[in-house]
Amino acid sequence: MGLVRVAGFAVSLDGYGAGPDQSIEAPLGRRGQELHSWFYPTRTFRSMIGQDGGSEDRDDDFARRSMEGFGAFILGRNMFSPSRHAWTDDGWRGWWGDNPPYHAPTFILTRHARDPIVMNGGTTFHFVTDGIASALAQAKAAAGDLDVKIAGGVSTVRQYLQAGEIDAMHLVVSPIILGSGEALFAGINLPELGYQVTESVSTDLATHVFLSR
Amino acid sequence: MGLVRVAGFAVSLDGYGAGPDQSIEAPLGRRGQELHSWFYPTRTFRSMIGQDGGSEDRDDDFARRSMEGFGAFILGRNMFSPSRHAWTDDGWRGWWGDNPPYHAPTFILTRHARDPIVMNGGTTFHFVTDGIASALAQAKAAAGDLDVKIAGGVSTVRQYLQAGEIDAMHLVVSPIILGSGEALFAGINLPELGYQVTESVSTDLATHVFLSR
Repeated sequence: MGLVRVAGFAVSLDGYGAGPDQSIEAPLGRRGQELHSWFYPTRTFRSMIGQDGGSEDRDDDFARRSMEGFGAFILGRNMFSPSRHAWTDDGWRGWWGDNPPYHAPTFILTRHARDPIVMNGGTTFHFVTDGIASALAQAKAAAGDLDVKIAGGVSTVRQYLQAGEIDAMHLVVSPIILGSGEALFAGINLPELGYQVTESVSTDLATHVFLSR
Repeated sequence: MGLVRVAGFAVSLDGYGAGPDQSIEAPLGRRGQELHSWFYPTRTFRSMIGQDGGSEDRDDDFARRSMEGFGAFILGRNMFSPSRHAWTDDGWRGWWGDNPPYHAPTFILTRHARDPIVMNGGTTFHFVTDGIASALAQAKAAAGDLDVKIAGGVSTVRQYLQAGEIDAMHLVVSPIILGSGEALFAGINLPELGYQVTESVSTDLATHVFLSR
């Protein structure tokens, strides 16, 4: 049986995991892309978007590990789409083009039913309308012995944290201040939920922090 | 005319600048001392408490600079004392013994009048009952060309931030999760207040982040 993990999840110094006002031009909210300044230069990211080269350093190592070992992913609706409410026939198939970086069954939390979408490279998007527990049960069944990644966004991570379902987290603290957006820690007492920091490693671009319970 | 600065001010990953439940046994609140794990090994800290030795590394450099160049300090009542409400004749003269680390006029925000206390080494504690603006005016007058340090705690820093009075901040992000305590950033939008990160430097023990406006 695998673990349920958050990995490579970036937050600002003031605790935001995304900027405010998500839109098609700003998938991560305003200034949200600055959270991932540690990630874009890595060979792992460049390879995801079909580019050669990139850094092969500790950030790259953490980036690669943040996508490895997972047999299923869970995403909130807003991490899949800038649209809200009922699905329309707009042809939207996620932010990632034809070959998303998941390469495994990927479960999208939504209140609105939709048929699965089979993408290239092994990713199938399944739309789950009966809650986070159901999505996790489906993801665990799909993952088999591999881990399930709670991929985000902030609201999804918070819901699984509060439900006590996350075994381990790799957070990436970026040295930026967003001021507003999606607050990861607000009202969540991680030590009370049983989490402790087991390791932290700083690079020139970020601090990687590992928590488990 | 000097600047008004916060320096060497530690926060946890989840944004707490002190733990909960301050007491005489826990001046920084429960687990609050873990915020300063970067500071205790330094030569600067050891020298403050009359000890030889200590690290002479980047943390020490930042620690020393966090106490240099100030002609006056401002502290909240709780940073001076574990007591609350009216002062009693309990002989309390701060947490720091006879020779506090300030070596300059130090203004304590309180609602309760009290005569100044002259300590060894150049520190005099002045008790200011007519608000943060008055304390800052007095501190600036006392500091002359030197800077004024808003020394803490969290509530005091927040009040001066929200009043737009702080020119620069050196925060120290410690890789710990406190879960509860005094939240520095909650409800404060630093970019909207004009602050931006100008530099960040990670050591093995913490990330030093510099902001200014």
